[in-house]
Amino acid sequence: MTVGSVLITGGTGYIGSFTALALLEADYKVVIADNLLNSSEETINRIELICGKRPEFFQIDVKKEEDFDKIFKAHPDIDNVIHFAALKAVGESSEIPLEYYRTNVYGTICLLSSMTRHNVSNIVFSSSATVYGDATRFENMIPIPEICPIGPTNPYGRTKSTVEACITDHVEAQRNNLKKEGKSGDHWNAAILRYFNPAGSHPSGVMGEDPQGVPYNLLPLLAQVAIGKREKLLVFGDGRSAISHIGHPYGERMLTELTVDYASHDGTAIRDYIHILDLAKGHLVALNYLRDHQPGVRAWNLGTGKGSTVFHMIKAFSATVGKELPYQVVGRRAGDVLDLTANPKRANEELGWKAERTLEDACEDLWRWTKNNPQGYRQSPPKELLEQLKKDRESGKKWI
Amino acid sequence: MTVGSVLITGGTGYIGSFTALALLEADYKVVIADNLLNSSEETINRIELICGKRPEFFQIDVKKEEDFDKIFKAHPDIDNVIHFAALKAVGESSEIPLEYYRTNVYGTICLLSSMTRHNVSNIVFSSSATVYGDATRFENMIPIPEICPIGPTNPYGRTKSTVEACITDHVEAQRNNLKKEGKSGDHWNAAILRYFNPAGSHPSGVMGEDPQGVPYNLLPLLAQVAIGKREKLLVFGDGRSAISHIGHPYGERMLTELTVDYASHDGTAIRDYIHILDLAKGHLVALNYLRDHQPGVRAWNLGTGKGSTVFHMIKAFSATVGKELPYQVVGRRAGDVLDLTANPKRANEELGWKAERTLEDACEDLWRWTKNNPQGYRQSPPKELLEQLKKDRESGKKWI
Repeated sequence: MTVGSVLITGGTGYIGSFTALALLEADYKVVIADNLLNSSEETINRIELICGKRPEFFQIDVKKEEDFDKIFKAHPDIDNVIHFAALKAVGESSEIPLEYYRTNVYGTICLLSSMTRHNVSNIVFSSSATVYGDATRFENMIPIPEICPIGPTNPYGRTKSTVEACITDHVEAQRNNLKKEGKSGDHWNAAILRYFNPAGSHPSGVMGEDPQGVPYNLLPLLAQVAIGKREKLLVFGDGRSAISHIGHPYGERMLTELTVDYASHDGTAIRDYIHILDLAKGHLVALNYLRDHQPGVRAWNLGTGKGSTVFHMIKAFSATVGKELPYQVVGRRAGDVLDLTANPKRANEELGWKAERTLEDACEDLWRWTKNNPQGYRQSPPKELLEQLKKDRESGKKWI
Repeated sequence: MTVGSVLITGGTGYIGSFTALALLEADYKVVIADNLLNSSEETINRIELICGKRPEFFQIDVKKEEDFDKIFKAHPDIDNVIHFAALKAVGESSEIPLEYYRTNVYGTICLLSSMTRHNVSNIVFSSSATVYGDATRFENMIPIPEICPIGPTNPYGRTKSTVEACITDHVEAQRNNLKKEGKSGDHWNAAILRYFNPAGSHPSGVMGEDPQGVPYNLLPLLAQVAIGKREKLLVFGDGRSAISHIGHPYGERMLTELTVDYASHDGTAIRDYIHILDLAKGHLVALNYLRDHQPGVRAWNLGTGKGSTVFHMIKAFSATVGKELPYQVVGRRAGDVLDLTANPKRANEELGWKAERTLEDACEDLWRWTKNNPQGYRQSPPKELLEQLKKDRESGKKWI
C-alpha cells in the first residue's frame, strides 16, 4: 500500500535519485522524469537494486508542458511533485545564462501550469543556499537563517530565487482565487528547500554522484584526484586575481604564486556539507509536512549548521583515502562567497529533521562509491557489493 | 536616410506607440511587433497620420522565438530592439502570475535568443519603478535613485526585476565570451528604463492611451469618470481594510466609512506622473546613448522628480475638465506603496534628458484625446483635428 504518489523531476540526478529512494522506502509510489542530459537511466536500476522497487521513468523536456501533461494523464494518482530538474553549474550559468533561465524558470512555469490543469497542488522545490549570496554583508546572518534577505551573486542563483518567487506567487494566487470563489478544493502548498553542499554516497557503494564532464563541486573533484583521474585539486582562493577567471577555470591558464585570502581561519571558503542521505530524508519530511499541515509556501534550510573550510575538506578526505591529495591555489571564481553555513533551526523545530550523518560518513561513503565504481554508472558494481545488497534487501533493511 | 533600424515590441501599446513616433521623427526606421491583445492596429494609422511615416507591422507572439526570427530575417538591417511587450496590470498579476512570468520573462528569453542568433545586440528594456517596491523602507531613498535596492511587492514587479536580471546576465555573458575568444565584434548593450507613472496623450488629440476593459491607472480612470463612462473614482487608501481587496477592486463590494491614511500630507499615495512625450523622448536618447557609448548594462529612472498625491491629481484633472470629479475611498490594494517618486538625476546627467512637460500639459492633452475620441481607436478623430494635423505635417512640425 502506498501513502501517496509523487512525480520527481530530475529524478535520475544526484539528489533526485536519493530522494526517490527515501520516498520508496517510506512507501510512496514514485514516478521519475528526467531528460538524461546530465544523468544516467542506470540510476533507476540502482534504486531498484537497493530497495527492491522500480520507479516508472519518463524521458521528458521540462520546457514542454505537454510532456508533463502526459505523465499526469498516465498517473492520475500523482498528487505531489518534487522538482529537481534544472541546470546547476554555477560557472556555466555565467556563460550561457539564457539557457539557465529557460530551463530553470520556464521549465518551472511549464510544470506549474500542467500541475494546475491536473489538480496536483503540492510541490517541493529544490532551491539552494546560493539564493542568499554573501550573507556576511549583514550582521548576525552566519549561520544563515531563512529570514536572511536573498541576494544571489550568479545567474544560477538568480534562476533559483526567481523560481522561488514564481512558485510563491502561484501558490498565493491559487489560494486567493479559491477563497474568492468560496470553493473548498485542494489548497496549493510549496516547500522551498534551500540546501547547502550535498556530499557523500549511498553506504552500500552502488549509488552516488556521477557527474558528466568536469565536476563543479569540491568532493567529486577530490574523488577524481584520489583515483588518479585528475592530477590535483584547484583551490579557488586568491582574491587579487578574482576577476581572472571567467567561465570554468579547469583547462584555463594556471596562475602562480597565489595565496588563499578568504577571511576564514585558513584562508579558504567555508561551506556546510550535508550527507546526501540526510538531504533525501529532508525532502521526505518536507513533503509529509505539506500534506499534514497545508502551510501554503514555506522555506527551510537543509544543512548541518557546521561550516568546513576547503582545506579542512582536503584533510578529511585525504584521511579517508589514506594519502595526501595534492592541490594548487588559483584565483577566486566570480560569485563565490566566503561563508555558506546553514542555520537549520527551523527545519529542526518544524519538520523534526536534523542532519545525522557526519562529514566522515560522507567521506567514507564517497570513497566506497568512487573506488567501486570508477566509471560511475557506466560499469556494474563489484559482485561482493551486490551480494551484500541482496542480503540487506532480503532482511528488509531500510537505509534512509 | 535613416540613422538606424529598430524593432519595437509592444509597439502598438501606449508607451510603445509614442516611442515609435519619437524614433520616426528622429529618422530611425521602425518595425513594430505586437500581439494586439491589449491594443489596436489602428495605432499604426495614427502614427502615420502624425508623422507621415508608416512603421511595418508584425502580429507576433513573444513566446514564439520563431516569430522574432521571421522579423529579423525580413529586416536584416535591424540593429536595435526596444522591448515593451508585456502583461502590465498589477492587480491581475496577483491572480494569474504564471501568465505574467510566461509572457514577460519567457517572452524576453525568446527575444534575447533570437537577437543573439541574428547579431542584434542593443536592447532598451521597458522596466518600471515598481521594481523598487517600498523605497520608504530605507532612509534617504525618496526620491528614488537607481542605486536603491530593488524589492518589488507584486508579481508584475517581480517579472520586471527578473527580466532586468536576465538581460544583465545575458549582456555580461556575451561581452565576457567575446573577450575570452579575443574577438572584436559587436558588444551587447542594454538600457534598463525604470519609469514612473506615464500620463497624457498626443497634443494633436489623435493618439493616446486606449485601455481595453477596466483601466488600472489613475488618469485613464479619471478620464472615464469625466466623460461619464464611470460613475466615480475609487481611491485606494484605507489601510485598515488593506487585505479586503483581492484581485481587481472594480466590480467588487464597496466598503463604507473608509478614510485615506497613507503617510502623505493628504493621506493618499504619491506618484511621479511623467508626460508620455517626455517618456518617449527618454527611449530615444537612451537608445542613442547605447549606440554612442557602448556602456554594457545601465539603468536609468525616467520620472519628473516631483511627486503628486491622488487627491492632487483629482483636483488637477477636475480643473482641466471644469467640474468636480466624484470619488470614493476604498481599502488599499495589496502591493501599493506610499511613495514612488523618481530621482531623475542620472538620466539628466548622462543622457542629457529631463522631463519638460508639466502635469497640467498631461491633463490637458489627456482631456483633448478623451473628448475627441470617447471610443478610443474604435472611431475616427474629428475632421478639424485631422485638418490641423495635415497642416502640421506639411509644415514639417516635429512633436517630440
